Amino acid sequence: MENSKQTISHNKEETATRTQEIVVLRWGHRPQRDARLTTHVALVARALGASGFLLSDTMDEKIRETVKKVTRNWGGTFFFEMGTAWKSAVRDWKANGGIVVHLTAYGENIQTSNVLDRIKTLRKDVLVVVGSQKVPKDFFSKDVSDFNVSIGNQPHSECAALAVFLDRFFEGKELAKGFKKAKIKVVPQERGKKTIVEC
Amino acid sequence: MENSKQTISHNKEETATRTQEIVVLRWGHRPQRDARLTTHVALVARALGASGFLLSDTMDEKIRETVKKVTRNWGGTFFFEMGTAWKSAVRDWKANGGIVVHLTAYGENIQTSNVLDRIKTLRKDVLVVVGSQKVPKDFFSKDVSDFNVSIGNQPHSECAALAVFLDRFFEGKELAKGFKKAKIKVVPQERGKKTIVEC
Repeated sequence: MENSKQTISHNKEETATRTQEIVVLRWGHRPQRDARLTTHVALVARALGASGFLLSDTMDEKIRETVKKVTRNWGGTFFFEMGTAWKSAVRDWKANGGIVVHLTAYGENIQTSNVLDRIKTLRKDVLVVVGSQKVPKDFFSKDVSDFNVSIGNQPHSECAALAVFLDRFFEGKELAKGFKKAKIKVVPQERGKKTIVEC
Repeated sequence: MENSKQTISHNKEETATRTQEIVVLRWGHRPQRDARLTTHVALVARALGASGFLLSDTMDEKIRETVKKVTRNWGGTFFFEMGTAWKSAVRDWKANGGIVVHLTAYGENIQTSNVLDRIKTLRKDVLVVVGSQKVPKDFFSKDVSDFNVSIGNQPHSECAALAVFLDRFFEGKELAKGFKKAKIKVVPQERGKKTIVEC
């Protein structure tokens, strides 16, 4: 649960003037079957601008370790939480003035609708819910999701859907940002691998 | 190998006037360990506008079946090939006038450099290479990659990297396109699931 309170319990009155924050909630993780995919989803959340990741309703120490290790080496303040029931996470998020966006192939198409504009206009912090298995019907209801958003209406991948959502939400800027206190930094180049490592 | 010849063996003279095509080559797939991730990568390729997918250097009948089934139900003409050695796939692609883009966290940053413009300006078909395990050093050399592109310079996911690359390459239009001969179509909506199924 570390580092989460200050991020999640944001002040409602600040919302109008500051950047919207995003936290990703992963639902339906099955430790054996989904280990690598959930790890990828968490790393995508971190690399593409989210502030933190909630692995709801279950524990997976290995994923937590991987994400913490990446953050330790590659910088930034990304938080990782696990075990919270999704219902209470959603309830708390909303009670603190945030909105919930559920990514689903059945939702409003991010390309052909104005759903992203409507989300951004609210200027509220966003909990992005990504499922693994088939999600409970409740996820589509007003009690849970403020928006159901599809990254195209074809079957593909929650990992990819999250990436495109974040890239569009942050208008690409997330890929340019620096990560503070990084021990490892890539120096982008046309050929080969170049890193700066500080231990 | 089905359906591949007509797509891969494109005519060089047509290149200047038609839309650039993308095919995805997945390297380093380990059947047990990478099964779900590689399936996601293939489905992302299909859903986000690529014409086909090459699973190089190995065979995985289960993934082929999954991708074929999705294409049969959800439409379009996406092709799936497996078993070809990556070296010959790259050689043939280049011999036919195509270029190779290697997605890697070490490459030119798609956000902070002009690499995407340079790729698009060439107006040539693109083979996008995505690795699974650590890739051979050769991948970074001129003999293989015309461009090494990073989707940010942080560790995350080849599945996400491919999605953002395709979304930016096709400027979002890929998420609006229809898939011909689909048996299942989603009707996007604000709440709930609505599909049209024709059997």
